[in-house]
Amino acid sequence: MNGLGRQLRIVMSERPSGPLEPRHFRAERVPVPPRGADEVLIRAGYVSVAPHARAVMQGPTYRPQLAVGEVIPSSVVGEVVEAPEGGPTPGTVVAAANAGWQEYSLVPLSAVRPLPRIGPLSHHLGLLGLNGLTGYFGMRSVAEVRPGQTVLVSGAAGGVGHLAGQIARVDGARVIGITSSDAKSAVLVDQLGFAAAVNRTSGTFVEELRAACPEGVDVYFDNVGGTVSDAVLPLLTHRARVVLVGVTSHYDADQPAPPSAALPVQAIAKSLRLEGFLVRDFAERWGTALEDLRAMASHGQVKVLEDIRDGLEAAPSALVGMMSGGNLGQLAVQLRPDPADWPTG
Amino acid sequence: MNGLGRQLRIVMSERPSGPLEPRHFRAERVPVPPRGADEVLIRAGYVSVAPHARAVMQGPTYRPQLAVGEVIPSSVVGEVVEAPEGGPTPGTVVAAANAGWQEYSLVPLSAVRPLPRIGPLSHHLGLLGLNGLTGYFGMRSVAEVRPGQTVLVSGAAGGVGHLAGQIARVDGARVIGITSSDAKSAVLVDQLGFAAAVNRTSGTFVEELRAACPEGVDVYFDNVGGTVSDAVLPLLTHRARVVLVGVTSHYDADQPAPPSAALPVQAIAKSLRLEGFLVRDFAERWGTALEDLRAMASHGQVKVLEDIRDGLEAAPSALVGMMSGGNLGQLAVQLRPDPADWPTG
Repeated sequence: MNGLGRQLRIVMSERPSGPLEPRHFRAERVPVPPRGADEVLIRAGYVSVAPHARAVMQGPTYRPQLAVGEVIPSSVVGEVVEAPEGGPTPGTVVAAANAGWQEYSLVPLSAVRPLPRIGPLSHHLGLLGLNGLTGYFGMRSVAEVRPGQTVLVSGAAGGVGHLAGQIARVDGARVIGITSSDAKSAVLVDQLGFAAAVNRTSGTFVEELRAACPEGVDVYFDNVGGTVSDAVLPLLTHRARVVLVGVTSHYDADQPAPPSAALPVQAIAKSLRLEGFLVRDFAERWGTALEDLRAMASHGQVKVLEDIRDGLEAAPSALVGMMSGGNLGQLAVQLRPDPADWPTG
Repeated sequence: MNGLGRQLRIVMSERPSGPLEPRHFRAERVPVPPRGADEVLIRAGYVSVAPHARAVMQGPTYRPQLAVGEVIPSSVVGEVVEAPEGGPTPGTVVAAANAGWQEYSLVPLSAVRPLPRIGPLSHHLGLLGLNGLTGYFGMRSVAEVRPGQTVLVSGAAGGVGHLAGQIARVDGARVIGITSSDAKSAVLVDQLGFAAAVNRTSGTFVEELRAACPEGVDVYFDNVGGTVSDAVLPLLTHRARVVLVGVTSHYDADQPAPPSAALPVQAIAKSLRLEGFLVRDFAERWGTALEDLRAMASHGQVKVLEDIRDGLEAAPSALVGMMSGGNLGQLAVQLRPDPADWPTG
C-alpha cells in the first residue's frame, strides 16, 4: 500500500482457446503495489486496446505468454504520480509501452517518455505511439518503400494499418488496403487516399484483389496472416518485401493455420524477403520518427482515425470486438479526462 | 538436322507424385534440333544432377513446371560446336546454366560463359558454378555473415551445403551442419572444418541440434525446409537471418508439409528475416565471386567434394538417390573425357 488505496484492474481470468469472449476477463479491485526504486508510478488517462493483448493471452510473443490472473498488457498515457529522483516530476504527462489495463501502472524509468505538449493526448497511443512507429519503421526501414511501388496493407483499417498505408502513400507508393467490410474500405479510399481497398469477406475477394493490383505487389505489410496472406502470395513481384507485423487471424484460433506450403518454394523462385521487426529495434531513431509523424499529421498528409471508448470496464468488449473487425482506426479506452491545459489541436 | 545425327537425351516420361523413381524418366534418341540465330550449340562434357531438377518436375520454380516429354534441365560444361558470329569459337570450353540432360544443348549466347583454363573442369559445375555462387551470395550478401556468428546449414553435405558452410567458416563463423547420416557428418567435421554436424535421422536430433548450438543460431542456410526447419525455429536468435535456398523435403512429397504455424508470430517476436534469392540476382558480381571462390580453393580454405557418375544414362538414378540423401558433395554425370590439354590441378 502507498496511500492510494485500491485500484481497478482487468486480468485474464481464463485462457481462451478459440474466439475471445468477455468471460476470459475479470475486473478486480486490488491494492496499488509499492513502487520499486527505479520505477515510475503512472495514473492512466488512456490505455490501448491492441491485438498484441490477444496474442499474449494465447502464447509467447516478444514477451512470455500471459498467465491466468495477470493484468492485460497495454500501452498507457497518463500522469506521473511518483518517480525516482531525477525522473519526471509528479503531474508530468508521459507514455509507456509496458503498462496494462489498470488505473495505476508501475513502469521502469527507462521506459517512460515525457510527452511534448502538442496535439491530442490520445495520439500518443496511436500516431505518436507504437502504432505510428510500427507503420513508420515498417514502411521506411524494413520495406524500404520506393515511389511508384504497389504497397498492399492487410488489416488496413486498424490502428497500425490505416497509418502505415498513409505513410507509404506519403512516400509515393500506390497503396491498396485489405479490410473486413465495405464500409471500412470506403473510408480508406474516400478519406485516407488509398488507391483501392478490398473486403476480405467478399465472395470474390481473390479476384478483386488481383484486379486491384494489376502490376503485382511490391510490398505487403501484413497485420493478418492466414488465408488472406496465402491469397497475396501469387501477386508478389520479384524481390517483393513482406513486412510481418501481426497475425490477427491466428490469435482467436484454437489451431492456427500454418502458412501456405507453397511459401518456401515461391520465396526462392521470386527472391522474396519476409521480415518481422519490433519498434524497439529502432529505438535510437524514435525521436526523428516521431517528429516526422507529427509533421505528416500537422500538414494533413496523414489523418488519424480513433475509436475511444469510455472507462476501463469497456476494454474487454473492445478487444473482443476488435478480433472480429469491429474497430476503425486506433482503439483505446479513456479512464480520466485530459489535463485541463492540454492542447487539443 | 544439322549433320550431327541423333543424340541421346533424358526426358520426364511421367510426372511423379511422391518419391521419385527411375520410371519417371525415359532415355530417347532424337535429332539434334537446328541452331537458332542467337544460340550456341554445346556438346556436353558434364551435366549437373541437382534438386532443382526434381523441383520443376513437381511444379513451377523460377521457371515453369516441366512438361511430360521435356528434357530434364541442368547446368552443363562442354565444348562449343557452333556459335553465332562474334561468339566463342568451336572447341571453346564453356558453361551454361539453362541446358539439360542431353548430349547437345542449345543455349542463348548471353547465357554461355567461356571457362578459364584453370583447375578441374568439373569444378565449373560446382564450386565455380551455381552451387558455389549460391553459397557465396547466400552467405555474404543475403545472410551477411559476421565473424563469431553461429551459422547452421541444412543439407550440409550436399553440392551447395558443403561449399556454403566452408565459405561461412572462411568468413569467421562457427558452422554447424545438418546431414542425413553419421558418415556424412563425420566428413564435414573431420575434413571440412565444420564445428559440429548433426544427423537429422537420429532419434535425438532435436536435442543434439540444441546442444550443438548453445548460443542459438544467427544464420540458418536452409536447403531442406520441412520438419528440420521447424526444429531450427526455436533456436534462432533475435534478428537471425534465414536464407531460403532449397526445399528438398518438399520435392518428393505428394502433399508438401507447410511451414510451422508458429513461424509468423516467432518471426515478429524475434525480428527474423527470411529471404530467398537466385544467383542471377547478383549477375553483375559473378566475376568477383568466381575469383574469390577460386582463391579459397587454391589456398586450401575450401575443399571440393565431388561425386561424378559415368554416362548420361546414370543421371536418373543419381537424382533418385540424391532425394534420399545418397550423395556427398557435388553430384554430376560425365558424358565425355575432359579435353586432353585441360589442366587438372
